[in-house]
Amino acid sequence: MSIAEPGAGALTPRSSRVVAARKLQRRRGRDKAERFLAEGPQAVREAIAAGAVDELFYTLDADVRHDELVDAAQTSGARLRPVTDEALAVLAETVTPQGLVAVCRFLDRRLPVEAKLIAVLHGITDPGNAGTILRAADAAGADCVVFGTDSVDPYNGKCVRASAGSLFHLPVIRGADTAEMLDVFDETQILAAAAGGEDLFALAANGELDAPTVWLFGSEAHGLDEATAVLAHRRVGVPLWGGAESLNLAVAAGVCLYASASAQRMRL
Amino acid sequence: MSIAEPGAGALTPRSSRVVAARKLQRRRGRDKAERFLAEGPQAVREAIAAGAVDELFYTLDADVRHDELVDAAQTSGARLRPVTDEALAVLAETVTPQGLVAVCRFLDRRLPVEAKLIAVLHGITDPGNAGTILRAADAAGADCVVFGTDSVDPYNGKCVRASAGSLFHLPVIRGADTAEMLDVFDETQILAAAAGGEDLFALAANGELDAPTVWLFGSEAHGLDEATAVLAHRRVGVPLWGGAESLNLAVAAGVCLYASASAQRMRL
Repeated sequence: MSIAEPGAGALTPRSSRVVAARKLQRRRGRDKAERFLAEGPQAVREAIAAGAVDELFYTLDADVRHDELVDAAQTSGARLRPVTDEALAVLAETVTPQGLVAVCRFLDRRLPVEAKLIAVLHGITDPGNAGTILRAADAAGADCVVFGTDSVDPYNGKCVRASAGSLFHLPVIRGADTAEMLDVFDETQILAAAAGGEDLFALAANGELDAPTVWLFGSEAHGLDEATAVLAHRRVGVPLWGGAESLNLAVAAGVCLYASASAQRMRL
Repeated sequence: MSIAEPGAGALTPRSSRVVAARKLQRRRGRDKAERFLAEGPQAVREAIAAGAVDELFYTLDADVRHDELVDAAQTSGARLRPVTDEALAVLAETVTPQGLVAVCRFLDRRLPVEAKLIAVLHGITDPGNAGTILRAADAAGADCVVFGTDSVDPYNGKCVRASAGSLFHLPVIRGADTAEMLDVFDETQILAAAAGGEDLFALAANGELDAPTVWLFGSEAHGLDEATAVLAHRRVGVPLWGGAESLNLAVAAGVCLYASASAQRMRL
């Protein structure tokens, strides 16, 4: 149990702290405060480990079930905000946040100096897809994920949840201009994921995935626009060997990122 | 434009045909009628190509925008059912079915005689994940997908949509007992996808993915139960090279299936 006991002093939905935190559900509110929300024990645990938690809202029930998280948040310097169930419900975007919602500071945005594997998302507006790609990039050991032109905000609640904690594991560049970002990486092989592009596995077999690589992913519905696709050195696709016309975007991105990561490691 | 013009004679939500078709939204209704629903132009097109459409419900608007599909359905022997917008709304499960819902006959369930790549879903209850794996298996050129013990119904509307037409492309075995099914494949290498299992890419590098393979996938939350996992010859995992604790299930399945498919093709 933590020092601040919820109950009598618990914040309600109308409390100014709750009202202020709720504004972080929208991009404008996040941009203004440079803060975002993470909910549920897994995300809160990762946020604490990343030293990102500014405030932790928690119910009486969560203080009992997840007391080690409440304690860890306090130790990390977060302000504790005991809340009523009703207040938590307005802060949370899912029905199962288990009584925990953290206000987190925007994360480190610096590009890593020596990067071998980078994912750039261009025009990806579906937060679930974007978060799942971020999770796959993290799993494959990528050095960085860039949310480029017209892509969803990585701090969008759905994206944070789909990333399953990966948002806190590796540098995530937010609101970048895709073309400018690719210019920074001009020493690196840039591959555009494109339906009908060169066969990914043929490249792998030829040793052409061993070099440091930036993968460029477009939207599931429309792919990459031509003006962006031409910025890549090659267009590469996951071959469709059966009857499917296309792959789910996050699955395709996972297959591409792992093909690169395994080729790079095999070479070591 | 088709022969049967919607408008005056269009079926309403209370029409017996609409009421009967709506029962296919539930598993009990599907089991009884041996029919299921597919909605939207992409799924309807694939269903017609598979010769599976029994009835096509369509609005006046859809008859104009998708007249080639309405004609093709009629040519394939489907009965045409012009409906009001309200009737279509009760039949559809999404907000964008573009005026088309087809009643489809259950598909061919036979196991292919010579299979090189098979996916078995065990205890996968999320229809979105299951449909996305089905789509990935189709893309990778798998011969068959088995929905085993405690897995969602492949004819569930969400699963049909997530499969993006792949349900109609390859044999899908429904309601199988996972253990009995694996027994059928006892001449084939059975690999259980398991977090912390042998490194998928090490197996690929050693030529151990070249043989005909059955992949066994468990639920995202709980993995495979031990009693099922022991039925596999080996436990194999997608390595986690970064900070992520796990991968999205459909992404992991896609990476595994493509690792096998590419290894098998490379050997040819």
